[in-house]
Amino acid sequence: MAELNEIKIFAPATVANVSCGFDVLGFCLDTVGDEMIVRMSPEKGVRITKIAGSDLPLETHKNVAGVSAMALLETLNPNCGFEIEIYKNIKPGSGIGSSAASAAGSVFAINELLGRPLNKTQLTAYAMKGEALASQCEHADNIAPCIFGGFTLVKGVKPLEILELPTPSHLFATIIHPQIEIKTSEARAILPKEIPLSNAIEQWANVGSLVHALHTSNYNLLSASLKDIIVEPYRKQLIPEFDTLKSKTLEAGALGVGISGSGPSIFALCNGETLADKVAETMYSVYQKSGIDFNIHISPINKQGIKVI
Amino acid sequence: MAELNEIKIFAPATVANVSCGFDVLGFCLDTVGDEMIVRMSPEKGVRITKIAGSDLPLETHKNVAGVSAMALLETLNPNCGFEIEIYKNIKPGSGIGSSAASAAGSVFAINELLGRPLNKTQLTAYAMKGEALASQCEHADNIAPCIFGGFTLVKGVKPLEILELPTPSHLFATIIHPQIEIKTSEARAILPKEIPLSNAIEQWANVGSLVHALHTSNYNLLSASLKDIIVEPYRKQLIPEFDTLKSKTLEAGALGVGISGSGPSIFALCNGETLADKVAETMYSVYQKSGIDFNIHISPINKQGIKVI
Repeated sequence: MAELNEIKIFAPATVANVSCGFDVLGFCLDTVGDEMIVRMSPEKGVRITKIAGSDLPLETHKNVAGVSAMALLETLNPNCGFEIEIYKNIKPGSGIGSSAASAAGSVFAINELLGRPLNKTQLTAYAMKGEALASQCEHADNIAPCIFGGFTLVKGVKPLEILELPTPSHLFATIIHPQIEIKTSEARAILPKEIPLSNAIEQWANVGSLVHALHTSNYNLLSASLKDIIVEPYRKQLIPEFDTLKSKTLEAGALGVGISGSGPSIFALCNGETLADKVAETMYSVYQKSGIDFNIHISPINKQGIKVI
Repeated sequence: MAELNEIKIFAPATVANVSCGFDVLGFCLDTVGDEMIVRMSPEKGVRITKIAGSDLPLETHKNVAGVSAMALLETLNPNCGFEIEIYKNIKPGSGIGSSAASAAGSVFAINELLGRPLNKTQLTAYAMKGEALASQCEHADNIAPCIFGGFTLVKGVKPLEILELPTPSHLFATIIHPQIEIKTSEARAILPKEIPLSNAIEQWANVGSLVHALHTSNYNLLSASLKDIIVEPYRKQLIPEFDTLKSKTLEAGALGVGISGSGPSIFALCNGETLADKVAETMYSVYQKSGIDFNIHISPINKQGIKVI
């Protein structure tokens, strides 16, 4: 058998926070994601040889996929190098884990080519090194669902502990990406450093009940748990038409609606594809009047996560 | 068949908060609880005819069991009244749901005698009226586990929504009750109104992972989730020897140790009865040097909750 020295992968988009679970919850999409080709080369090190679909830097140390790959190679120190081609379909700055997909993609692919020396949690840790380049802090709430698939809970980062939560089978996501720019750093700066204890209690009741809802496939409870009284009140100001879009999509039957990551994308979770389509139409009708360009994606929850294609 | 007109019940003690789940989580004990005899009487209204084991008021409107029973009768308006005898085994002010047991006991028993017109959530709501007499606010974090059994999550109180969480089968609790007085109101007043967002995030990650741990019977994860960085740092100051007791019992193998409700009782959760016994010995050896009187209870988790005996 010829040795595998080139691999093509699909690195999916992801939704972080999931309303109540700021900084800890996330889920994985299936119909939106980057493709990457990674091949072994005799020359050591990592080279980004091509980027299509986006104007991102080719320099290894300025590219999240390059930085995470370099961090991985520093540990594994294989007797070869890697060339990476990136085909971006997830727009940088869209709030659905564009940098996480790139950061996860390179380490996942290299790990596959080297015979899987590392497990998924270890890969998450290396991908976080790349993600830090994009957001100035190491976090795993997009990387974890990208690598593990389904719903994930980042229990902690020191030590890194990722929990895989069950995914109810009829769950679909509808995502709208208004093409405005929100920097993650700006979306962080707008948040208060301190919050009322009473709000925190309500939020952790919702996190607990959302995890219970996922375990019991209880769509009504899932709906009742998809609330964010801590972060959304601040960040929604950065997203035109957020309140209108939220109320109209909930009226249309979405289980819950919230900001994807730090925005500007907005996600809705829906029970079944028909409803996800209807919610997409509602999003379309609200946003087409806004004069802002936008994309809409409809996707089942991706239970597998990043994969070889 | 003769009509049932007298009933004897067991109203168990409970542990509220369970470290990370301040104000929302609770679990039910099996070996500690009050007994109550409730009988129908031709005369309408509620009379507390006997209280043994504690110096609590017999006046209906000053007694939590009386107040919750009256609230229930106001709605149901049956063509009879009720006499209540209370045999207290749970010491008032111990922090293991003494008032909740009394408040839940009377409404549970009356509901049984009337042929169960109300469900458990409705009973919880009436019991909260009695609990409010003791703690100046309506809360359900002791009443819910007393009535439902097992682990419960109070998702919200308006509307009241109680979630029944699974109970891993080998779980035991060891409780020490140092006989000092901590008023619930005092234990509330000591808490900050605002907390750092970063601490809240860590706490809700733990709530989510504790719920996941209960669903998956993952004792290691349960242990890692039983942390309270919000409330315990304040309230532990009210409990002598808390830090020593906690570190020694964790060393002895407890999965987690925390303040039961607003204290002064301290609970430990343990994997198996042998370990629960060992933890009890450790608690004994720490506290016997303190000069403070104390009781220690060992109990499996009570999955049934309040019951007819």
